[in-house]
Amino acid sequence: MDERDLLGEVMEVLGKDCCLDDCAVIPWGEGFLVATTDMLHRSTDFPEAMSDWQIGWMATAVTLSDIASMAAQPAFLLLAVGLDRPDRLREIMRGARDCAARYGTSLVGGDLDHHNELTLVSTGVGVVDREGIVRRSGSHPGDLIAVTGVPGRAQAALEGVRRHERCLFEPRPRVEEGRALGKAGVSAMIDTSDGIALSLYDLLAANPCGYEIHEGLVPLPEEVEDHGKALDMALFGGGDYQLLFTCPAERMPIQNVSYTVIGEAIPSHEVLIDGRPLGKRGYQHVWPG
Amino acid sequence: MDERDLLGEVMEVLGKDCCLDDCAVIPWGEGFLVATTDMLHRSTDFPEAMSDWQIGWMATAVTLSDIASMAAQPAFLLLAVGLDRPDRLREIMRGARDCAARYGTSLVGGDLDHHNELTLVSTGVGVVDREGIVRRSGSHPGDLIAVTGVPGRAQAALEGVRRHERCLFEPRPRVEEGRALGKAGVSAMIDTSDGIALSLYDLLAANPCGYEIHEGLVPLPEEVEDHGKALDMALFGGGDYQLLFTCPAERMPIQNVSYTVIGEAIPSHEVLIDGRPLGKRGYQHVWPG
Repeated sequence: MDERDLLGEVMEVLGKDCCLDDCAVIPWGEGFLVATTDMLHRSTDFPEAMSDWQIGWMATAVTLSDIASMAAQPAFLLLAVGLDRPDRLREIMRGARDCAARYGTSLVGGDLDHHNELTLVSTGVGVVDREGIVRRSGSHPGDLIAVTGVPGRAQAALEGVRRHERCLFEPRPRVEEGRALGKAGVSAMIDTSDGIALSLYDLLAANPCGYEIHEGLVPLPEEVEDHGKALDMALFGGGDYQLLFTCPAERMPIQNVSYTVIGEAIPSHEVLIDGRPLGKRGYQHVWPG
Repeated sequence: MDERDLLGEVMEVLGKDCCLDDCAVIPWGEGFLVATTDMLHRSTDFPEAMSDWQIGWMATAVTLSDIASMAAQPAFLLLAVGLDRPDRLREIMRGARDCAARYGTSLVGGDLDHHNELTLVSTGVGVVDREGIVRRSGSHPGDLIAVTGVPGRAQAALEGVRRHERCLFEPRPRVEEGRALGKAGVSAMIDTSDGIALSLYDLLAANPCGYEIHEGLVPLPEEVEDHGKALDMALFGGGDYQLLFTCPAERMPIQNVSYTVIGEAIPSHEVLIDGRPLGKRGYQHVWPG
């Protein structure tokens, strides 16, 4: 049973709306609030080599990435910390504070708890106007598919490429880029935290159309000599917090955002790479049973 | 090192404002948003006998209680679930959904994670207008101290009094009461989740005045025969989600809220019970070292 199966159960209880986007969307005055919460913990999410400051940074960054993918402006953040050792708190809080400040927002509160395994839950609320919001749904056949930055670097770091370690330990959520993409009128968006392939399948679940990408267009992580391996990292690796989006061709190029077109939305409801089905795999929590 | 020592460190990093109230307070248009997050987990917070539905209910209730203590109206909730077993999810979500619905709000999203120890983090956002908000600060000498409901029942249940089990397993956050108390113009408010004594000390930390309560006025949990034990439960027991507040005498009685006056705010900066210092103890997380 994996995370996406369990989401089905959540949808049965809460209704489908709760799980359609990277953030919950709450109509608010003339626009929307978006809200998201992310649980991270030691064994799954924080490699041994990470500093406490980096752990605080990362917990905040993943939440900001969800807000970015809605083209929203972060408004405030909360951080619940389940601490294994009290002496870790200060640096974790500093990392979280610094990440929030870097992206123009702040940590306004939180909770402290004692936990055998270090566990962080960051929650973020953002604002976006009615015209500016971008959701997972909204792609049309013919829209171009693009991704910000270079996917696969975090996975490369996980597999030992030291040069990319900061991509893994100090992810840079694409907050400014998300806002700019919203203003440019992109049609659908998601972040790539579980890899490009799973993100494409998440887009597929929210849209009647499908997607086809082209191997030769996908940017690859530097310093990975084996081409197949580099492509695998780019498509199926976790830990990147780039934005994957679709956009009508006539709205490109988009100013002030570094991105690469990797394919296009297609009429048939499937995910392809150069005409063949793209593997539905990537980073997923799996539960026994 | 206890939770309140660690809060000092958080305040050094984030500034004092982050920790002054049960919720963070964010100026928003003509009023405020309030926001709070609470981490609960199996070993500390969920007695063995609790059902999964009750666990979901409780995680939601504690967050609603924080919102209630600001006299705010809950607007939306998020729930992050660190699941030890996938089959627990459905009932946990149902409990959370039912609690949210009971108090006029809804669960709009969340996160799923695999965790060795069942860990729930609920986050809530509420709204309150500029005149209606009630904070921990604001007491004046002469204000009466009062508490809603009957404190100590959850602790009595923890110590085996079956009659009070639902108070422990299915706490009823005082959302309507909090709003009514705000409208009535109470001067300061906090919830009693760590016990009346610690809540009075938390009020003390936020106010220049002090507080004196009177043993004979404190409502006691029913079916605890030993008077001293019952008083101990009422003052120092955890797990109640009542509201403790101060109010100028001329604003009492307050309609539509069941409460008991137990003392008054005093000019000297201390917490007394019938002239003697009240023990500063109750439910606290403690970290070794």
